[in-house]
Amino acid sequence: MPEGDPSVGTVYLVGSGPGDPELMTVKARRLLEEADVVLHDKLPGPEILGEIPEDKREDVGKRAGGEWTPQEYTNKRLVELAQEGNTVVRLKGGDPFVFGRGGEEMEHLAANEIPFEVVPGITSAIAGAGVAGIPVTHRDHVSSVSFVTGHEDPTKDESAIDWEALAATGGTLVVLMGVGKLPLYTQALLDAGMDPATPVALVERATWPNMRVATGTMATIVDVRDEREIEPPAITVIGEVAATREAVVEFLGNRTGELADHDGLGTTTE
Amino acid sequence: MPEGDPSVGTVYLVGSGPGDPELMTVKARRLLEEADVVLHDKLPGPEILGEIPEDKREDVGKRAGGEWTPQEYTNKRLVELAQEGNTVVRLKGGDPFVFGRGGEEMEHLAANEIPFEVVPGITSAIAGAGVAGIPVTHRDHVSSVSFVTGHEDPTKDESAIDWEALAATGGTLVVLMGVGKLPLYTQALLDAGMDPATPVALVERATWPNMRVATGTMATIVDVRDEREIEPPAITVIGEVAATREAVVEFLGNRTGELADHDGLGTTTE
Repeated sequence: MPEGDPSVGTVYLVGSGPGDPELMTVKARRLLEEADVVLHDKLPGPEILGEIPEDKREDVGKRAGGEWTPQEYTNKRLVELAQEGNTVVRLKGGDPFVFGRGGEEMEHLAANEIPFEVVPGITSAIAGAGVAGIPVTHRDHVSSVSFVTGHEDPTKDESAIDWEALAATGGTLVVLMGVGKLPLYTQALLDAGMDPATPVALVERATWPNMRVATGTMATIVDVRDEREIEPPAITVIGEVAATREAVVEFLGNRTGELADHDGLGTTTE
Repeated sequence: MPEGDPSVGTVYLVGSGPGDPELMTVKARRLLEEADVVLHDKLPGPEILGEIPEDKREDVGKRAGGEWTPQEYTNKRLVELAQEGNTVVRLKGGDPFVFGRGGEEMEHLAANEIPFEVVPGITSAIAGAGVAGIPVTHRDHVSSVSFVTGHEDPTKDESAIDWEALAATGGTLVVLMGVGKLPLYTQALLDAGMDPATPVALVERATWPNMRVATGTMATIVDVRDEREIEPPAITVIGEVAATREAVVEFLGNRTGELADHDGLGTTTE
């Protein structure tokens, strides 16, 4: 641990995992108990947020009036709370560093000489596929997996994601926050030469009690999304591995197994 | 849950996370307590294995004589133990489905009508970078991250990993099990046009008590590896984000902070 002003508190950048409280780490659970203040948004999900005592919660996801809290406010608030001597948990959905802006928060803390610790969490990009019976890598099928955000920073140049290169890797692709732009990036991947028969799965609210899974192919998945009314938060899993689900789901005991009867549409092998 | 023969036990495919026992999930810890048998290899690491009562551990990592247990044996043993009515934990390092052969085990269980559950774990590919102060994605730098194995199935065609396509994504690359073949894939990436000044970090035994971090560039990292004598298990993080560590490490309280004095070689900004 760095030596610093002992009156300054530590900030813990904590990943809450995909949403099931039992998929939090032992360390995350301990820190939630020990923290003086927990800064959070809605992404950890209702079950986890419901377990945090109301009097230590501070919601930086939305401000009054429905506007998003600017990242600058969150950064400033983390420093302020630590300087007041608080032990602060910055609780983030999934892992703090997988499209979570944890990198920016970490840099801001260091620039302000606030001691911090990183507490990784399980990303829904891996877990959401896994609990649906889909291994993101598979010795028989793929040697790589790539994660991309489907909710690009609108200030960036449109070409920030190179879908052609991603298609060319031949590996599994997992798109986070990609429900809305599904038609755009599936088209980009097809234009890049991806086989329209490539299996695709959408996993909505992965590991939450009302989790849903819908499967199809690159050619059908937009229609499947519309018919099943899949909504954010969800991940999109693209690749041969997405077909694995069908072979195993009958014996899969995860929460998603309970919803197998909702899963008749757009299966990957029909 | 599927309805099946009540005398058949359930198999839990459990990820143990990167090695720090506190980075196991609450569910993994509960299942280790409840299990009748825990099948494991060495990958969960000494701290986690040391917490499992000796009488329920079954090591399928090595056989007498030092040979690896064939995957077929592990598959068969999982079915056998479940059919005998045991609650079985198959404990895997990291996440069961990130280069963990969990997909094959899951398929074998389903084919043999054994009920199973998937319990995701934190992969060292994300956590190893994170606790070293490296965010695998960063709004200012990258919109994608790809994970590849540096320890390719030797029976596969050599071109199973398309390093050129991976370089073209422009995203962060994390290579798992890639200490030995570091010279080969760094050369492949340079040949594909990657900038030799691209920052690279090696994180050895991520989150273990004796974790080490070494940093360099695509041009220097092989020498850094040799001088620092970095050994498996380790991850290789390639991309602009690898340079983040230097800006934050002074205030980083994770275990790696304790080893900052070992980190003088091959820094990314010198």
